[in-house]
Amino acid sequence: MKIHGKPYRTIWPRGDEAVEVIDQTRLPHEFATLTLRTPEDCARAIKTMIVRGAPLIGATAAYGIAFAMRAEPSGKALVAAHDMLLATRPTAVNLRWALRRMHDVLHTASHGERFALAWREAAAICDEDVEICHAIGEHGLELFRGMAAKKNGKPLNILTHCNAGWLACIDWGTATSPIYQAHDEGIPVHVWVDETRPRNQGASLTAYELGGHGVPHTIIADNAGGHVMQAGRVDLCIVGTDRVTRNGDVANKIGTYLKALAAKDNAVPFYVALPSPTIDWTLADGATIPIEERSADEVLKMTGRLPDGRVATVEIAAPGSPAANPGFDVTPARLVTGFITERGICAATEAGLRGLFPQ
Amino acid sequence: MKIHGKPYRTIWPRGDEAVEVIDQTRLPHEFATLTLRTPEDCARAIKTMIVRGAPLIGATAAYGIAFAMRAEPSGKALVAAHDMLLATRPTAVNLRWALRRMHDVLHTASHGERFALAWREAAAICDEDVEICHAIGEHGLELFRGMAAKKNGKPLNILTHCNAGWLACIDWGTATSPIYQAHDEGIPVHVWVDETRPRNQGASLTAYELGGHGVPHTIIADNAGGHVMQAGRVDLCIVGTDRVTRNGDVANKIGTYLKALAAKDNAVPFYVALPSPTIDWTLADGATIPIEERSADEVLKMTGRLPDGRVATVEIAAPGSPAANPGFDVTPARLVTGFITERGICAATEAGLRGLFPQ
Repeated sequence: MKIHGKPYRTIWPRGDEAVEVIDQTRLPHEFATLTLRTPEDCARAIKTMIVRGAPLIGATAAYGIAFAMRAEPSGKALVAAHDMLLATRPTAVNLRWALRRMHDVLHTASHGERFALAWREAAAICDEDVEICHAIGEHGLELFRGMAAKKNGKPLNILTHCNAGWLACIDWGTATSPIYQAHDEGIPVHVWVDETRPRNQGASLTAYELGGHGVPHTIIADNAGGHVMQAGRVDLCIVGTDRVTRNGDVANKIGTYLKALAAKDNAVPFYVALPSPTIDWTLADGATIPIEERSADEVLKMTGRLPDGRVATVEIAAPGSPAANPGFDVTPARLVTGFITERGICAATEAGLRGLFPQ
Repeated sequence: MKIHGKPYRTIWPRGDEAVEVIDQTRLPHEFATLTLRTPEDCARAIKTMIVRGAPLIGATAAYGIAFAMRAEPSGKALVAAHDMLLATRPTAVNLRWALRRMHDVLHTASHGERFALAWREAAAICDEDVEICHAIGEHGLELFRGMAAKKNGKPLNILTHCNAGWLACIDWGTATSPIYQAHDEGIPVHVWVDETRPRNQGASLTAYELGGHGVPHTIIADNAGGHVMQAGRVDLCIVGTDRVTRNGDVANKIGTYLKALAAKDNAVPFYVALPSPTIDWTLADGATIPIEERSADEVLKMTGRLPDGRVATVEIAAPGSPAANPGFDVTPARLVTGFITERGICAATEAGLRGLFPQ
């Protein structure tokens, strides 16, 4: 999508020498890109969250393998790069998946062809993610068109939580993909952006994305979402997800459940944008999803720009008070109007999911 | 209650010249008091939230009227001060109530006795609030005792939103009064303190209060309240209110509605601590309560302590992104388990309220 009028992906090749990424640790305060040339560069970018978002982490790791194969296309080097990259964020599912895919493609190939093969495969991982996100957007766009038609030219008001945007993917994003496609098609849209404490991915990344692409939006405190729905100022909610269980329960950024409750209470449709790799067919329901407890510092501190432009972190809570920081919550399937997948829209039920993904 | 071992109220007279208040905009980073001497001082203190919380706003406005009467005890000056003070905050019914009470006492009095009468009446408003808060605590304490008895010595887990503590009142607080009384009686309690963005009254004021009094507590992002209820880690919610309509609808700090929805969804009792002056008998239901739209800067910026101890404000959002900031929401009576008033506990219905307050 566009930043300052220029189209970007989150990762792109420079010849077959290097890849360029957006340094997301500096967003939204500063836009800067960074060149990665070695497996170690890629590992560092993942570890320090220069790149974040499950699909982007996987893609960066794939290029890390390619750089390793250029330097030394041996089996030993392949395993070493695989293990080093896997250790950067050991819980990220896409990371494991992308590294496994690269390994499987490469380990039977001759040494001479490994680098070229790896480079093509990393690019394919990126392109496939873009395709999935774009397809989610096309299906969501049809839904949006229908809803927008009833608005008599007034903007379609969409509420989203956290960042399920293109900065977390390669392009388009998941929840944001129909928003960008609707906007590009000339459908008037306006997005309520939940701040998304404690890490503020909404206020910092989603708002940055939408602003960069020229999509009208308004940041609100997470607390305000219920009120704007009560006031009739939200036509639909759309969020991403980290994991969906077989029955349609949705694990997503902490606070998603509260918005789903408010949507239900106010008869506002609540959609989840769902790339199919996010479906966990092994889990029957959300009760068994482990919820990550993150650092209390994320609640007790906040980072931003000082008046002189420098970035600083301030302590915001009463000194000495402890904090808890569950990173995700589970929205029961009964609160979800539908899943928007790369194959179409379905009900948030096992039957709905199996209808689109029978395999 | 105590700060640094010394008992305070939130507002207290200095002779009959001035009143002293705690500057709540500087908490929790710094404890400082401020002297108010004129109606304009009082209006500014209310408007800039140096004083906040419905009862404290009412008390401060009452002293504002007294200062006006000292300067010029005319009917015209009385009306002018009344109107100026009333315009400071649109949602708080205590403000209107306190100003009406002052007006009613004063307008039939001779000019010569108006200041002394006003000064006594403002002090009476403060003393009565302390009595009311203490009585709310006594009734809530009985409820807590019953619930704690079923916990087999484990702490009673209470979730609260915003600050309905003594810093919002004159002493004791409303929602916190039963918590302090239970804690003082030796009932083990633990309080989940909602951060309460955008102004962070939970993380800064409620946590500050509870920490000062030694009450175990944990700050959470507003987003986390639903998850802790789903996880069975909340025994009851208790919040304050800025205005309750005749049918039991509750206007309170933005985000309260979301917690009430989550409480209902998880069968967690949701109580509202309700001093009777907060009841607005003139409004049939919450649909007609005006909701104050506050400055976008409260969402876009955050104030805290730098590592060197200085207090600084940082911009936390994407540059150029707009924000909306509704200050309150309305929790429908159907989500409220009961009102804890100074006369006892009642259902969140007109019949319930009239049962305790038939006049």
